[in-house]
Amino acid sequence: MASAGLSFGNPVFAAYAAYASLVTLKMFFVVFFTTYTRFSRGVFANPEDVKGNKGAVARLDHPDVERVRRLHRNDLENIPAFLAVGLLYVLTGPSPGVALWHFRVFTAARCLHTVSYLAAVQPWRALGFIAGILTTTSMAVQVLMAGAL
Amino acid sequence: MASAGLSFGNPVFAAYAAYASLVTLKMFFVVFFTTYTRFSRGVFANPEDVKGNKGAVARLDHPDVERVRRLHRNDLENIPAFLAVGLLYVLTGPSPGVALWHFRVFTAARCLHTVSYLAAVQPWRALGFIAGILTTTSMAVQVLMAGAL
Amino acid sequence: MASAGLSFGNPVFAAYAAYASLVTLKMFFVVFFTTYTRFSRGVFANPEDVKGNKGAVARLDHPDVERVRRLHRNDLENIPAFLAVGLLYVLTGPSPGVALWHFRVFTAARCLHTVSYLAAVQPWRALGFIAGILTTTSMAVQVLMAGAL
Repeated sequence: MASAGLSFGNPVFAAYAAYASLVTLKMFFVVFFTTYTRFSRGVFANPEDVKGNKGAVARLDHPDVERVRRLHRNDLENIPAFLAVGLLYVLTGPSPGVALWHFRVFTAARCLHTVSYLAAVQPWRALGFIAGILTTTSMAVQVLMAGAL
Repeated sequence: MASAGLSFGNPVFAAYAAYASLVTLKMFFVVFFTTYTRFSRGVFANPEDVKGNKGAVARLDHPDVERVRRLHRNDLENIPAFLAVGLLYVLTGPSPGVALWHFRVFTAARCLHTVSYLAAVQPWRALGFIAGILTTTSMAVQVLMAGAL
Repeated sequence: MASAGLSFGNPVFAAYAAYASLVTLKMFFVVFFTTYTRFSRGVFANPEDVKGNKGAVARLDHPDVERVRRLHRNDLENIPAFLAVGLLYVLTGPSPGVALWHFRVFTAARCLHTVSYLAAVQPWRALGFIAGILTTTSMAVQVLMAGAL
């Protein structure tokens, strides 16, 4: 019998854990990119951030910084939901192949969203966003059906 | 003996999983509603979103869109915390009846918050918000007491 | 043999659960502090929040309120990721001592970040932020290596 719980001996869990980490690290790349954009433009959010930093200013409306922040907020709207629902989905005992493709599509979709938001290209950004949220919705519906209200 | 772990054979877990999915799908409704509001008002966040879309503008201060975004951000401040803490709370082995009402009150409270934020009615919005955060706080305190610092 | 799963009999899990609750309650303190700042300054986000409240105004740019909101958003960028990745890290079966210090450093770092954001002092805020994200990154890399893509 296949293992079916939360252990790295269960291939569905091992895949979930790997993609969950990967997409979290991707989200942390956006943190790093925000910091990079702030330093390269000399634009920070707080007065104490620019003290002694000649040429830097505190403002909240630089278009390059705000673009990265909007991308990051979209991550916050989607990635924690995936992390939580994905774990519950593992416990529904899905077919390993189907489960693996849920995790892969979500991760690839969020990478596509990130790159196309930074590059300002549509409709790729919308496609990445929609593919990601549909994947999480599919998992959430399956968890809801396995659960009991 | 009752099952006490993370399996759908444990009624407390089965209830948590169902309400966790439901409240995630509710949060995704807000995503859909943001998109609907943007299209119906013709207001988007990025220049590339309005290209070739006659009559649409890129601006960040439309009151209807910003209202939905504030509601969404309040979800982000509360729902991921519930998802994480609720799972740990299941593992403390709570009384099924008490646990079930934690999950139900949280979910109902967030639905009340959503509807009353969109309808701009107080004090219902504040009541929904407070009931939700008190429920998660109650679970967090129980998990903290079961854990070891 | 030591217990290695998600049960309070496993000391690594018991520690994770306690610190996860603690850092969630810390995040809820920021919610409370936002409300306190809004009431003490008489500044709210929505027209329905100031109706019948003499002297209160609806505006979105009060510097004291926006400072707390930026701090809160930084929590949202870091704490849900810790909660999800930390749970998966417990399942990799780490050395209890090493794991405990991951949880402690993260929690202390986020408290340092909170206090120094409110007090507007650098570089403590940056140090708290960096220590927190490095801790979660360390756990994410270990989970990724234990998992299977």
